[in-house]
Amino acid sequence: MQKNESSCELVDADQLSVALIEAQYALKNTRGQKNAKSLVILVSGIELAGKGEAVKQLREWVDPRYLRVKADPPYMMQKDRAFWQPYARYIPAEGQILVMFGNWYSDLLSTALHVSAPMDDTLFDAYVAQMNAFEQDLKNNHVDVIKVWFDLSWKSLQKRLDKMDAEDQRWHKLHGLDWRNKKQYDNVQKLRQRFTDDWLIIDCEDEEIRDQEFAQYILKNLKHLPNYVTQVKEKWQQAEIPNELLKPSTEEMDEDEYKAELKKLTKKVAEAMRFDERKVIITFEGMDAAGKGGAIKRIVKKLDPREYGIYTIAAPEKYELARPYLWRFWTKLLEDEKISIFDRTWYGRVLVERIEGFASPVEWQRAYDEINRFEKDLTDNQYVIVKFWLAISKDEQEARFKAREETPHKRFKITEDDWRNRSHWDDYLKAAADMLQRTHTFYAPWHVISTNDKYTARIEILKAILKQLKAD
Amino acid sequence: MQKNESSCELVDADQLSVALIEAQYALKNTRGQKNAKSLVILVSGIELAGKGEAVKQLREWVDPRYLRVKADPPYMMQKDRAFWQPYARYIPAEGQILVMFGNWYSDLLSTALHVSAPMDDTLFDAYVAQMNAFEQDLKNNHVDVIKVWFDLSWKSLQKRLDKMDAEDQRWHKLHGLDWRNKKQYDNVQKLRQRFTDDWLIIDCEDEEIRDQEFAQYILKNLKHLPNYVTQVKEKWQQAEIPNELLKPSTEEMDEDEYKAELKKLTKKVAEAMRFDERKVIITFEGMDAAGKGGAIKRIVKKLDPREYGIYTIAAPEKYELARPYLWRFWTKLLEDEKISIFDRTWYGRVLVERIEGFASPVEWQRAYDEINRFEKDLTDNQYVIVKFWLAISKDEQEARFKAREETPHKRFKITEDDWRNRSHWDDYLKAAADMLQRTHTFYAPWHVISTNDKYTARIEILKAILKQLKAD
Repeated sequence: MQKNESSCELVDADQLSVALIEAQYALKNTRGQKNAKSLVILVSGIELAGKGEAVKQLREWVDPRYLRVKADPPYMMQKDRAFWQPYARYIPAEGQILVMFGNWYSDLLSTALHVSAPMDDTLFDAYVAQMNAFEQDLKNNHVDVIKVWFDLSWKSLQKRLDKMDAEDQRWHKLHGLDWRNKKQYDNVQKLRQRFTDDWLIIDCEDEEIRDQEFAQYILKNLKHLPNYVTQVKEKWQQAEIPNELLKPSTEEMDEDEYKAELKKLTKKVAEAMRFDERKVIITFEGMDAAGKGGAIKRIVKKLDPREYGIYTIAAPEKYELARPYLWRFWTKLLEDEKISIFDRTWYGRVLVERIEGFASPVEWQRAYDEINRFEKDLTDNQYVIVKFWLAISKDEQEARFKAREETPHKRFKITEDDWRNRSHWDDYLKAAADMLQRTHTFYAPWHVISTNDKYTARIEILKAILKQLKAD
Repeated sequence: MQKNESSCELVDADQLSVALIEAQYALKNTRGQKNAKSLVILVSGIELAGKGEAVKQLREWVDPRYLRVKADPPYMMQKDRAFWQPYARYIPAEGQILVMFGNWYSDLLSTALHVSAPMDDTLFDAYVAQMNAFEQDLKNNHVDVIKVWFDLSWKSLQKRLDKMDAEDQRWHKLHGLDWRNKKQYDNVQKLRQRFTDDWLIIDCEDEEIRDQEFAQYILKNLKHLPNYVTQVKEKWQQAEIPNELLKPSTEEMDEDEYKAELKKLTKKVAEAMRFDERKVIITFEGMDAAGKGGAIKRIVKKLDPREYGIYTIAAPEKYELARPYLWRFWTKLLEDEKISIFDRTWYGRVLVERIEGFASPVEWQRAYDEINRFEKDLTDNQYVIVKFWLAISKDEQEARFKAREETPHKRFKITEDDWRNRSHWDDYLKAAADMLQRTHTFYAPWHVISTNDKYTARIEILKAILKQLKAD
């Protein structure tokens, strides 16, 4: 089982320190480079095994300024956030190293050990599978993850407890478990073996070996950070462009009818979102001038301004580029708004980034699954995601561009970028077709809305929200 | 008293909307420009006066994507954080507008109205003075602040309460106060008049006037954002460079003595920091190669890695430059680490930014007071700040630079920037002298440590920490 268990040869501590610092700086110097990486080190283990001491020793050997340490009390697994949400904002930028004492596995262990009824193995394993998938997504996006379990035999644990004074022992019991209870100890060991297959297991009997084995493992990993970006093997299967994108409907709505409907629907939508027990995410993608801003205005019309947030997504900044592309969305969702509206989204990865070449083929081709997992994690955890693609015909876009240029107070809405994007019209249609095909899921379906007629579009959008919230 | 009370002329709503959107985009387009600004709008007022409705109407008139709204439950004024700390991270970047329902004044009001004993007027006024000073600092750093009080007469308030159903009334009572109680109403009015002198007071009797007066006031302010960066009038009084900077001591310490002392002091320092009831901030400034990294290593030697964070401050990123220069430190202190160590600090404003011209004379000359206020706010609120200037002689620096270039595993520590900074040696001495003279306060004193001898320096640093924590 414990295939990573290794006997460790002690090396000269000064040399180890120099090698670690060099590796640290080498990593730091990848910043902004093509091979840029960061490293997350998850540490967990048996009480008193000494993970704190091992990290302390590591931080003495390295340059402590470039080894960040996070320690959170456990977050119990619960149904209103994905397991990675409490940690997402700390995912390090390129060149950085982060040690996480509190992490999703320790949360899972805590939860499994503390829930009144024991956690079902199937559920436990499902969580582990999700965690592995999340880590693989991190790795694919330049954040390497290594995991270390600090192990201690029952006998050694009891000996160490014997040596402590009563006050300290009580404190250790407060950490959540009675480490004098053999059944509990065995249970921890049994549970952690369900996920530690790909961990380094350190036997912490000997403190010097413990510290060196930990540091050497990190050194080894720093020196050989794997490159997960491989060649694309298969030819890309381009989806057929659906007719609703090629020739968006031009059905028109009468103004009086629109006004009456709008009045009714804005109220209904506001209430549906407000009283839905889930947090609501509404996202917009589509060609420029397709009417995203106008649609958003109508969605929020009957909401109190304190009930919602709008996120307008532009090109990422440098500090955002230094992290996985989903990071800037993870952190926005942490604001905990009841209703979040995104004017452009994470789909930029498979739209503009694909078309402009900011993401390599292997990166954007992998992104569909990553995005599906991201949305699945959210919808599994008390979010509902309503996704819109606003479809417009090329002629109608041109008409709107020209109108904007001619209207003084709309001139600011049109830029050279808009004309440039227009020149890639067919590429965007292709990219949108692929996106719709690959990310239209039962838990986060797409709504394609023709916006050639603004009135019809706005009404359709409001109706689609009601329908997805099952409030129609 | 209410000098801003105005009668408002109604204008055409569509024209008002266009003007607001244009002003909004004009602000947005200042991003990255010399005249860049952002705007914070604080709103408070009497229950049922309709501040929520007015902001809702405003958000309908403007482009809602570029008007952010924050609403927090009140933070009671308490002694473990400065009043601005809960809000600091939301201070908007250049080009952005933020409406704050929850804000430092509503917190102060809530606190004054809810504490078991009424808040002393002197204390209340002292808070208000601090808030005004903080806002002036924001304004000086390109964040304009406008404040609007939504007022309602006792009679109208009672009428509006009469019209509500019982369930809603209970909810309004839950908002904290019994608005049926005339004494409480009068008390709110009496208290808020202690701070609303420079607020716009809107009489919310008429809803249309209320919404227009609010929107027109914002429009007026957006159109005429004041420029607080004025000419420097007086000649700068350069401080004399103290001898300890010109000729740092070269006293040496014997290795055995050092080792014995170090062992004793690292333990003592760890315990002093751990058991101090305040949060501890330790900051380092000084010439390159003065030994900041080495000193930090010794300070944290006996700490658990989970007890402290180290912040290495490099050149600010674009998103940081878009905010007041203290913003990136405000946000770091929110991490709530018990012990925070800064390798370079906010003093960059009056050191590198002064010398390289990144801050204008009026900006860096104003920064001393701003920094003093910042540190005062922290030390008034359960922080202790231990500030070090590490002084080294020019010869010793050169020797260390050369040694670094010759030692393989230290070569990464030396860059061209280091040599360039060295060429500004005298400028840095002058800037340091001014800084020491103007920011050496009783609540956050400087410790100037000669680091020509590393052993002596490290021991002195540890002793200085003990002394300031009164643990020596």
